[in-house]
Amino acid sequence: MKKLPKILVLNGPNLNMLGEREADIYGQFKLRDVENFCKKTGKVLGLQVDCRQSNHEGELVTWIQKSRGTYSGIVINAGAYTHTSVAILDALKIAGLPVVEVHISNVYARERFRHVSFISTIAIGVMAGFGLDGYAYAIQALADRMKQFNRK
Amino acid sequence: MKKLPKILVLNGPNLNMLGEREADIYGQFKLRDVENFCKKTGKVLGLQVDCRQSNHEGELVTWIQKSRGTYSGIVINAGAYTHTSVAILDALKIAGLPVVEVHISNVYARERFRHVSFISTIAIGVMAGFGLDGYAYAIQALADRMKQFNRK
Amino acid sequence: MKKLPKILVLNGPNLNMLGEREADIYGQFKLRDVENFCKKTGKVLGLQVDCRQSNHEGELVTWIQKSRGTYSGIVINAGAYTHTSVAILDALKIAGLPVVEVHISNVYARERFRHVSFISTIAIGVMAGFGLDGYAYAIQALADRMKQFNRK
Amino acid sequence: MKKLPKILVLNGPNLNMLGEREADIYGQFKLRDVENFCKKTGKVLGLQVDCRQSNHEGELVTWIQKSRGTYSGIVINAGAYTHTSVAILDALKIAGLPVVEVHISNVYARERFRHVSFISTIAIGVMAGFGLDGYAYAIQALADRMKQFNRK
Amino acid sequence: MKKLPKILVLNGPNLNMLGEREADIYGQFKLRDVENFCKKTGKVLGLQVDCRQSNHEGELVTWIQKSRGTYSGIVINAGAYTHTSVAILDALKIAGLPVVEVHISNVYARERFRHVSFISTIAIGVMAGFGLDGYAYAIQALADRMKQFNRK
Amino acid sequence: MKKLPKILVLNGPNLNMLGEREADIYGQFKLRDVENFCKKTGKVLGLQVDCRQSNHEGELVTWIQKSRGTYSGIVINAGAYTHTSVAILDALKIAGLPVVEVHISNVYARERFRHVSFISTIAIGVMAGFGLDGYAYAIQALADRMKQFNRK
Amino acid sequence: MKKLPKILVLNGPNLNMLGEREADIYGQFKLRDVENFCKKTGKVLGLQVDCRQSNHEGELVTWIQKSRGTYSGIVINAGAYTHTSVAILDALKIAGLPVVEVHISNVYARERFRHVSFISTIAIGVMAGFGLDGYAYAIQALADRMKQFNRK
Amino acid sequence: MKKLPKILVLNGPNLNMLGEREADIYGQFKLRDVENFCKKTGKVLGLQVDCRQSNHEGELVTWIQKSRGTYSGIVINAGAYTHTSVAILDALKIAGLPVVEVHISNVYARERFRHVSFISTIAIGVMAGFGLDGYAYAIQALADRMKQFNRK
Amino acid sequence: MKKLPKILVLNGPNLNMLGEREADIYGQFKLRDVENFCKKTGKVLGLQVDCRQSNHEGELVTWIQKSRGTYSGIVINAGAYTHTSVAILDALKIAGLPVVEVHISNVYARERFRHVSFISTIAIGVMAGFGLDGYAYAIQALADRMKQFNRK
Amino acid sequence: MKKLPKILVLNGPNLNMLGEREADIYGQFKLRDVENFCKKTGKVLGLQVDCRQSNHEGELVTWIQKSRGTYSGIVINAGAYTHTSVAILDALKIAGLPVVEVHISNVYARERFRHVSFISTIAIGVMAGFGLDGYAYAIQALADRMKQFNRK
Amino acid sequence: MKKLPKILVLNGPNLNMLGEREADIYGQFKLRDVENFCKKTGKVLGLQVDCRQSNHEGELVTWIQKSRGTYSGIVINAGAYTHTSVAILDALKIAGLPVVEVHISNVYARERFRHVSFISTIAIGVMAGFGLDGYAYAIQALADRMKQFNRK
Amino acid sequence: MKKLPKILVLNGPNLNMLGEREADIYGQFKLRDVENFCKKTGKVLGLQVDCRQSNHEGELVTWIQKSRGTYSGIVINAGAYTHTSVAILDALKIAGLPVVEVHISNVYARERFRHVSFISTIAIGVMAGFGLDGYAYAIQALADRMKQFNRK
Repeated sequence: MKKLPKILVLNGPNLNMLGEREADIYGQFKLRDVENFCKKTGKVLGLQVDCRQSNHEGELVTWIQKSRGTYSGIVINAGAYTHTSVAILDALKIAGLPVVEVHISNVYARERFRHVSFISTIAIGVMAGFGLDGYAYAIQALADRMKQFNRK
Repeated sequence: MKKLPKILVLNGPNLNMLGEREADIYGQFKLRDVENFCKKTGKVLGLQVDCRQSNHEGELVTWIQKSRGTYSGIVINAGAYTHTSVAILDALKIAGLPVVEVHISNVYARERFRHVSFISTIAIGVMAGFGLDGYAYAIQALADRMKQFNRK
Repeated sequence: MKKLPKILVLNGPNLNMLGEREADIYGQFKLRDVENFCKKTGKVLGLQVDCRQSNHEGELVTWIQKSRGTYSGIVINAGAYTHTSVAILDALKIAGLPVVEVHISNVYARERFRHVSFISTIAIGVMAGFGLDGYAYAIQALADRMKQFNRK
Repeated sequence: MKKLPKILVLNGPNLNMLGEREADIYGQFKLRDVENFCKKTGKVLGLQVDCRQSNHEGELVTWIQKSRGTYSGIVINAGAYTHTSVAILDALKIAGLPVVEVHISNVYARERFRHVSFISTIAIGVMAGFGLDGYAYAIQALADRMKQFNRK
Repeated sequence: MKKLPKILVLNGPNLNMLGEREADIYGQFKLRDVENFCKKTGKVLGLQVDCRQSNHEGELVTWIQKSRGTYSGIVINAGAYTHTSVAILDALKIAGLPVVEVHISNVYARERFRHVSFISTIAIGVMAGFGLDGYAYAIQALADRMKQFNRK
Repeated sequence: MKKLPKILVLNGPNLNMLGEREADIYGQFKLRDVENFCKKTGKVLGLQVDCRQSNHEGELVTWIQKSRGTYSGIVINAGAYTHTSVAILDALKIAGLPVVEVHISNVYARERFRHVSFISTIAIGVMAGFGLDGYAYAIQALADRMKQFNRK
Repeated sequence: MKKLPKILVLNGPNLNMLGEREADIYGQFKLRDVENFCKKTGKVLGLQVDCRQSNHEGELVTWIQKSRGTYSGIVINAGAYTHTSVAILDALKIAGLPVVEVHISNVYARERFRHVSFISTIAIGVMAGFGLDGYAYAIQALADRMKQFNRK
Repeated sequence: MKKLPKILVLNGPNLNMLGEREADIYGQFKLRDVENFCKKTGKVLGLQVDCRQSNHEGELVTWIQKSRGTYSGIVINAGAYTHTSVAILDALKIAGLPVVEVHISNVYARERFRHVSFISTIAIGVMAGFGLDGYAYAIQALADRMKQFNRK
Repeated sequence: MKKLPKILVLNGPNLNMLGEREADIYGQFKLRDVENFCKKTGKVLGLQVDCRQSNHEGELVTWIQKSRGTYSGIVINAGAYTHTSVAILDALKIAGLPVVEVHISNVYARERFRHVSFISTIAIGVMAGFGLDGYAYAIQALADRMKQFNRK
Repeated sequence: MKKLPKILVLNGPNLNMLGEREADIYGQFKLRDVENFCKKTGKVLGLQVDCRQSNHEGELVTWIQKSRGTYSGIVINAGAYTHTSVAILDALKIAGLPVVEVHISNVYARERFRHVSFISTIAIGVMAGFGLDGYAYAIQALADRMKQFNRK
Repeated sequence: MKKLPKILVLNGPNLNMLGEREADIYGQFKLRDVENFCKKTGKVLGLQVDCRQSNHEGELVTWIQKSRGTYSGIVINAGAYTHTSVAILDALKIAGLPVVEVHISNVYARERFRHVSFISTIAIGVMAGFGLDGYAYAIQALADRMKQFNRK
Repeated sequence: MKKLPKILVLNGPNLNMLGEREADIYGQFKLRDVENFCKKTGKVLGLQVDCRQSNHEGELVTWIQKSRGTYSGIVINAGAYTHTSVAILDALKIAGLPVVEVHISNVYARERFRHVSFISTIAIGVMAGFGLDGYAYAIQALADRMKQFNRK
């Protein structure tokens, strides 16, 4: 049986609390909804999707470092670390995989310090404001890109 | 026969030149490819998609003003006016429709002045860097949102 | 019969939508109310008032250029172009007429980017926040100024 | 006999020196001209106008605090304190009366530090550059507003 | 026996080193002194006080997330993370508990980068410069607030 | 009979209006409540507390200058002058007494210009956001500090 | 007969008003003088020079887009749009022709906002301050460059 | 007997405390030493020197306004108001007398906010860092200037 | 046998990936090469060198805290945390050991945000751009410094 | 024989190295080519052209000071001093001759610090990006200007 | 015969041109007038005054370095180098002599870049705006200071 | 006899004064100690080291220009010119030799303006804070690099 290409979906700090509060900003779904939804989206597209969440910047850095060789792309919602972590940026550069940046809320319409993203500078693209669906669009985007490259 | 909900896809200055040059940044497809792709995407989703392009800030403003009542949502790639036009922001606020902001390239990885968007402050969300596909994701996002609201 | 001195009232982008939405900011009157009110105000003061509106920066520039020789003063609410258009500033300098800047809402109490006005640097004065009435005060101000100059 | 609604006209530092110097900026009229003109304007509009001037920030703060209950609105030309006094802003917020900000000269066309106004953030509106007449327009604006509210 | 309301006292990076060095800035007491003092203060006020310290941003984030439901308030001295961690801010917003921010030294009189606090934007209040005692005042403040709410 | 050490509690502009308005920000208590509460707090701690309020920057400066020799410490809520007065900073440096800075509301969570405090640079510490209680904590802090110094 | 290489000379907003006013800044010649002068200069150099002027940003964008294939180079004085138009920059990048930027006055010695030019970032070079002659030097520069390239 | 020309020496906030503290910055002399020294210096130069000090910005403003007609020049050490008072700047412009700005300490070598002076923009000159003697040099400078003008 | 003085070499986030990618920036050696090289360099100089690497800011903080008493100096390449971590700065201040800051690449010639270093403010010195060798120079520098102190 | 008017061409630091390196930015010609080209250009226009180059700011200052009386205009390429030298600006103001600023490369398309020019504020005009030819255009511009003045 | 204490008066770039131009800013006296005036002033005060001027930053640096041991103080008008030279600042710190900074014009009332002075940070004091007389006051200030120190 | 590769060691302004003063910052060694130490270090490494010092920016520029062809690398401590000289940067780019930047003190821990280095942008690496030894490490670094290149 042919092995499916694998996508890594990473969620950063506080995304384990989805659905607990601030539903007006982040929606009512929970992290496990996000993760199941990602896996289901992957299945439809012929991709195996693995999901991880951490509140630790260092743990996210380590996972990203190890993604190389195993995964074909990364979907990352680095939460608050989006705006402060040069270490995650460096790890993503080392991993060298295509990266799609996702934000549940439209960060560009919120506080000033949420407009800065270290990750954006090396991501293929950014999706912000589409809630749970944003993850699906992101996986779709990686799948579309993989097809495009395979075709060539 | 039931009338389909309508979506307006607006392209701003220089997007009529897609495929002519700078293919490394903007890809090889042309504006009419974008527009056909949008319409096809809409059809699949049960939406009628109308497309317009203008190099004139004032013309875009006028179209946005008139969209109210006729359309259920706007997908806008305002090109260079994204970064300079308060008038388009004001028009979008007046129209009061859900707006998805699209950029073909990842503007957050380009020159500094392309990081500023007046439109973002009122858009549902932003998609940047996904080429032609970004339009499809954007229409999908409006469709998803419409279903969600209808369900309630 | 003696010809009345003429005043040009210019309204910029989106002001054709007055009364359609955002009534809390812009009031419930429409552009034609503004224009009729201006004309009526002018009549009382012995002035002929002509009114024009455009969403096009270039069209406003052209009208301002042509105002010289025909008009004795300009009342301008340049809307969003107030904050971004050097071209309108340059046109007003070329026209060389006395200019009164009007804003329906108090722009100084709104977003930061609405505090900057290129027009202010050459206007006689500014009126902001007085709704429909602001136009009347502005025409009054031009009339008062004309009397003052004639008296000398 | 029905008591007239009362308006408080406040003039800040150095406005007691009007007409003494810098006539090119501030005109040739004196403070007492301003105050008489305000009263006369008020009378025409059915308002009693009281006028006070002080060079002391603290005194202006105190007068504003006490205005509540007695006055229906404040016209304030805070002079130099416009640009530096958070205390006057706080007092005006406490007083809770409608405020119109007046400047004799067009402060937006002068030195940079005169473009900042703490008062603007809570004023109904601003009038700048209309000399003596600015006070009349301001009183008119308060009167217009009172009528509008009474009508409702 | 009635269960006492619980307060969580969190200390961030390097506060485990209190009393080891820089006594001129941080005093001579140790972390266990702080923690005992907090508990004793709590006892007097009828509160159970739990104390935790971590050098890991992610661990603090996790503890804050879990505080909801168990604790009635948080006293936090996030040390260096005060000035850099958006993740802790987000966690505190999710927890939704009343927060008092404490600093042993007067951070507003030290280096510029110590004047910025992400936590302040959602804290009830801030106490800085009172050494060991600051923790007592903070617990007192939470207690006072709880009484006030209970009384209503 | 042994003379009690004396503490000076200073309140700046607009604090004489406490309880009149903006109760959501400043609470419902009045200045005389603050002052009685301070005196009572002092009595418990064996301190004589004198209270003064002024809207005049110059008067506050003069009181601070004269505090030396008579008082053992100053609790100051300089209101709006916190953010603008270098003169009060200089006076406090001349007085050379221990100073505790108090703010009724959490100024660090309000407008940007309320984040700057000239006083902080020389205060022992800052308390912000604890309403009426903040004064008690501040007096307590001065008392604690006096004990500490006496003990040495 | 051999066809001459063609140069496009574009003039932006308000340059149709040359010679009408502000002669101290812009000189006494008119736009038709500029255009005739450009054509004459071109003839001497064996170039056909076409000239266009518009007050509309969108119209300039469209002309630039269409210049490709027809013209060998562009001389542009974008007037006020020099300082505000990202759209013209984008159009010039798409056209991909050699561009010389001209300003009649020395913009670097005028107001601050006239020091910024989006066009400069992709122009071969800039000429500012040489009045009517600047256009001749610019055409000469394009001619010199064409010779240089042909020689290779 | 011929009347001597008069010079006004103004000292701002906290200068009444000279010699009380911070002798390392401000020296050991007192305000009355400064004033006697100024008078003595004046006598030698054939000038009558009047001295005033106030902690009130408004009082300084009033004195400056009244100086016109009576005095031939002003020596001003506005203390902390140097850096914050637009009102004193405006008063000095109204007075229209030659002004010399004095600072006892070298303000340009102290905190950043002491580098800004509103007064400098209209003063003949500035003297900073020369302690008591600075006043003498300032009076000398006014005297030298008066001689120079008389000579013409 | 005499115990050798000990040096702690700390490597921060992503330095465990040395040699995996971006060889143009970071060279082709691996972390274990760095560590062996450091130990060998130490041996030659009569020093015991211990090496640790972590992707976790908090872990680095803890190691630094514990270094006191055991080590005579620290060589630190904090990677991305150099530019963002106040916590590491605070830990280094608490440790109180001589610190040499190392960067493999010349950070001062890279992105702007890599020019800021919290560590520099307390380091003896900085070495950037010398690849693997930079660690040797840093250990040498600590050794030279220890000799110098011993000699005294 | 009639003496020819004289023009001084000044080249600043490193321009003696033209043609040695960085040919992609500065071209392949040498300084003596520039100077011969300038002289030849002058001859054609009936001007005597003198050329000097120095790496010393002070030497350039001295030459500029002495140019008055001897020369009718200055063409200056101050190289790196363009961006840093206030002394050359002051010298040019003292010389009082018409100045044309030349840059071989288009400095406005290079590093940020090369966009600032002290010289521009007093130059007739600026030419940047035209290589060797820029000098010819500059001399031409001075010649054109001289004719224009003579004609009057 | 007792040797007189020596003062070094240094004048920077372009001050050799005094009296040649810009008399409205710099007066009509020449450098030799300044130097003679300084010597005469010195003689009266029992000081030998040596004067030097250079347009070269490096030469001023060298003279300052050598001043130590020979001179008792330096009066320096560094002209344009005041605002740009860190090297002169460093030299003055090395020399370790008391320094008085002089400017003929009131630099604080001129262009922004003339408000910055590296020298001020280590000068005893600054004198600006007093023309030729400024030098005399400066020498006087050094003499007064020497007396003061001798007295101690 | 084989000729040794040559290294140029350049010292900028005020470094000729080493050992004269500010020993706490710069140590007690003299320039000739630095130069002898450099030569001795070179000898050990098989390099000929030439040393030069100048207070003149222009002289340093000239030496750097001439270094090409003769030297294999440059060690430069440009002193104050590090922070202000674009001319030295340009010269180093023209020379095209490997450059190591040295600072005796840790400039990154001193005044803000010493954090900026034009040289860093093109240097291999930077060494700051290691006193005399920094020069040895720098020469070592050049030697190491030369070996590395030879080996390839």
